[in-house]
Amino acid sequence: MADSLLKTLIETLCCLPGVGQKSAQRMAFHLLERDREGGRRLGETLLEAMERIGQCERCRTLTEETLCQICSSERRDSSLLCIVETPAELSAIESATDYHGNYFVLHGRLSPLDGLGPRELGLDALANRLQEGEIEEIILATNPTIEGEATAQYICDLATKSGIKTTRIAHGVPLGGELEYLDGGTLAHAFSGRRELS
Amino acid sequence: MADSLLKTLIETLCCLPGVGQKSAQRMAFHLLERDREGGRRLGETLLEAMERIGQCERCRTLTEETLCQICSSERRDSSLLCIVETPAELSAIESATDYHGNYFVLHGRLSPLDGLGPRELGLDALANRLQEGEIEEIILATNPTIEGEATAQYICDLATKSGIKTTRIAHGVPLGGELEYLDGGTLAHAFSGRRELS
Repeated sequence: MADSLLKTLIETLCCLPGVGQKSAQRMAFHLLERDREGGRRLGETLLEAMERIGQCERCRTLTEETLCQICSSERRDSSLLCIVETPAELSAIESATDYHGNYFVLHGRLSPLDGLGPRELGLDALANRLQEGEIEEIILATNPTIEGEATAQYICDLATKSGIKTTRIAHGVPLGGELEYLDGGTLAHAFSGRRELS
Repeated sequence: MADSLLKTLIETLCCLPGVGQKSAQRMAFHLLERDREGGRRLGETLLEAMERIGQCERCRTLTEETLCQICSSERRDSSLLCIVETPAELSAIESATDYHGNYFVLHGRLSPLDGLGPRELGLDALANRLQEGEIEEIILATNPTIEGEATAQYICDLATKSGIKTTRIAHGVPLGGELEYLDGGTLAHAFSGRRELS
């Protein structure tokens, strides 16, 4: 199969995460043989999205507006600010919890070796925002990795300077998990973070 | 996450086979956060492919030219014609075998209930081509399903009328397969299709 445009299409589809040569081929044939309209729509949407979607001025999540729908909504509690690493994590929290405050997306975590310092994560903008005095609680939802914890600690220090209460989401045994099969780190975390039952 | 363009992008990505809501979200975030250039290229390639790729006039495979590279090549043996159901199967034969003849793609199999008759499969064009007298052997590589077998039989009758030798690819135990776990149909086929060893 050496037809150039078809080959290019298959190669280009491989840029999608989790898509190899074989799936890309299946996708290309599916679109060409059964869903040209869908393929055309996907092409147009991709071009439009890559062109127009940028970051929200306030919370840095992905949006095609200046302010995202969460930041511009008047029904969100602006005294709560949840810090996440990526827009995907924001989206996971939105769909799983009834959290009704605002967000701040870091787009990464502190990692000086990769050139990711406080400036790259927008922490200077965050510090200014903390000064405004509207925020009463910061919820740190960075991932429980070494860098994630360091980032959480850094932001905690920032917030303490501004006299703002800081909380961290709980880490422990996941629902449906069995202690026997849990890794030692998580189990130790769950143990030391035990809470009194009333 | 109610930002419309991002949401549209995720929904549109779901039109790809094997991609659900979750993978589509992962793909969208990956392209937006890490590979905008790839996303743009994919969009352009998709639009161009959907617009320009059509069927080869001679063998009906997918190509953006009038004649595909196989049909227009002078190094292929034009006395051999292999009949396949889809361009994907053509591509599989091309990469696995050293077959050097031409192809004819049916884009389906005879299935009157689905409105797929000889005309839809291009069998009238095939009949004309068989009359030309250039073809000496027809290799039937339709799938071993009921419709695939019926299609093979139909084409065999066509070829016999034109006095052309017709062969069918072998069906039997796959390489690395174990008899114990093989379905009865395949085993019976392999048994009745046994060949003398010399």
